[in-house]
Amino acid sequence: MLRIAIASITALLIVGHAGAAEPIALRDMGSFHVGGRLVEISGKPVKEVTLTPGGVPVKVDPNGTYQVEQMYVQYFLPASEKGAYPLLLWHGGGLTGVTYETTPDGREGWLNYFLRQGWAVYNSDAVERGRAGWAQYPDIFKGEPVFLTTANPFERFRIGDGAGSYDPDPAKRKLMPGSQFPNEGYENFVKQNVPRWTTTDDAIIAAYIAEIDRVGPSIILFHSQAGSFGFKVAQARPDKVKALIAIEPAGLGDPAKADALKNIPTLIVYGDYIDRDSRWPTIRARGIAFADAIKAVGGSVDVVDLPQAGIKGNSHMIMMDKNNAEVAALIQKWLVGKGLTK
Amino acid sequence: MLRIAIASITALLIVGHAGAAEPIALRDMGSFHVGGRLVEISGKPVKEVTLTPGGVPVKVDPNGTYQVEQMYVQYFLPASEKGAYPLLLWHGGGLTGVTYETTPDGREGWLNYFLRQGWAVYNSDAVERGRAGWAQYPDIFKGEPVFLTTANPFERFRIGDGAGSYDPDPAKRKLMPGSQFPNEGYENFVKQNVPRWTTTDDAIIAAYIAEIDRVGPSIILFHSQAGSFGFKVAQARPDKVKALIAIEPAGLGDPAKADALKNIPTLIVYGDYIDRDSRWPTIRARGIAFADAIKAVGGSVDVVDLPQAGIKGNSHMIMMDKNNAEVAALIQKWLVGKGLTK
Repeated sequence: MLRIAIASITALLIVGHAGAAEPIALRDMGSFHVGGRLVEISGKPVKEVTLTPGGVPVKVDPNGTYQVEQMYVQYFLPASEKGAYPLLLWHGGGLTGVTYETTPDGREGWLNYFLRQGWAVYNSDAVERGRAGWAQYPDIFKGEPVFLTTANPFERFRIGDGAGSYDPDPAKRKLMPGSQFPNEGYENFVKQNVPRWTTTDDAIIAAYIAEIDRVGPSIILFHSQAGSFGFKVAQARPDKVKALIAIEPAGLGDPAKADALKNIPTLIVYGDYIDRDSRWPTIRARGIAFADAIKAVGGSVDVVDLPQAGIKGNSHMIMMDKNNAEVAALIQKWLVGKGLTK
Repeated sequence: MLRIAIASITALLIVGHAGAAEPIALRDMGSFHVGGRLVEISGKPVKEVTLTPGGVPVKVDPNGTYQVEQMYVQYFLPASEKGAYPLLLWHGGGLTGVTYETTPDGREGWLNYFLRQGWAVYNSDAVERGRAGWAQYPDIFKGEPVFLTTANPFERFRIGDGAGSYDPDPAKRKLMPGSQFPNEGYENFVKQNVPRWTTTDDAIIAAYIAEIDRVGPSIILFHSQAGSFGFKVAQARPDKVKALIAIEPAGLGDPAKADALKNIPTLIVYGDYIDRDSRWPTIRARGIAFADAIKAVGGSVDVVDLPQAGIKGNSHMIMMDKNNAEVAALIQKWLVGKGLTK
């Protein structure tokens, strides 16, 4: 009788967990833009523009002052905060904060995961991406934006097994063997891709520094292109960065300033199939060398190659893979181990 | 004694409301992209691009298939849902869903307001805005994007008193007399502005229809440029649109299809200073004529000119004005009056 009752309660708890998750209680949520600068444009003709078809025309004088290079930050503050510092999520190239929201197959992303663990989460769009807006080119931004075909990320992000692996038909795609990427939702991931420049790093870093200066001491979790931003911002504000979590960093900090990182606990995570890719062995080797440079000056860097930790099948988009919660739990455990929770 | 106790409880309730608001309890939050189409690009040379300075170069073949014209939707589902249908928030031209988040002076926006009232809120970025991404031009989008100077919205959105009213120094700006716009936060509003095209209406409408088809029967609250989208989408999906709330619509539906709107309760809201502006008397007159066309076929349209309802000082950005909660309460009351709450 008692055994049945306990079994029933356990069953209820399991149903409660797997089916409808606990509500998320927020003490506040909102957004802000931060950073950027003003730029003058002059010598251009005034245009008459009808902004809405059939609408009332309006004169638009393109000469004047423009606000450019700000970034967008959306924050979610849990009612019961358990992180010692806010957790900033920085996305990779050609992407936005959507990276950390719902996965392409409709599961919860890392934003929800870390919020449920009690972290105050600040999810953002870097300069020129998403809700940050972008500036006219070539007048303000240099060079042209890069657009990606539907096939490009599939073949480059170790979802498919290299060039030619993509097919519009999900069943005909040549996936990495044992891939954890939600192939059936790949089109939803493609829709998240936005144009990006390759000439805006300085502006992006300046805005991220402005974010840190506004939010205060923080932990940064960053991905891919933001590898360069996470480490460089930490080198610029070593006292305000309390931990770094680099998810497959494609760029790195300044090796000459490794000393600035020696007091910042750092975790670097790499997924699967590195050796099968043409570029990732080089990218990873540079990351390991950078980690070694930090360790050489007395810093603490933990490098986790997920397959060696028993977590297999991860693409470059680890936060979207089917085992994303398992990797998030590994990160959470590392944060707890570093004493970064209350 | 009893009187004192009641007074104390009342004081506590007032403090609770004005100081730290109640936590927001969400049964779920997340995002998705919806709509769009595939486009082929051919005949262009392959480029070698270094996506991260100092990074490993990658060949980018611009030929191929591109995903374009999708839109972005972020949803917040309250633990205790009190709206009879989801509430979709559609922003105006050159803006994104940020319109409805925190106000430029840091107060809660309409997203939080309606969420706290128990509405399931779907806040979005239209095609080519914000997290929706944008497509290459002139290959896919026709025409050039429009960028606005920092002064333009100030002078055009009835914040300042017409041309020449803007000054970089907030103290030197010529505001509309009695303006409720948070002048001291104007720079934060400028940072929310994003480039926009004037040639993408059909794509935007198609994506909004896809949103309605995915979310199901809904109420749409829409602003400015989205006047055209709200009414036209309702004309395309009259059975799925349960109410329309038009905030200063700059565009309208098809007058020849007014009949399709006759069963959809509609509220149109205009702010202050219409008569002082060069364009708004015409825009408003067209809105009134459209409302009359719906009423002529038996529809129900309530037009509220806020100053006549005793709510004064509103700019075109009503959801950001200092009295935004007062206007939201008027809308909430209208929704309750139409039987659209549980």
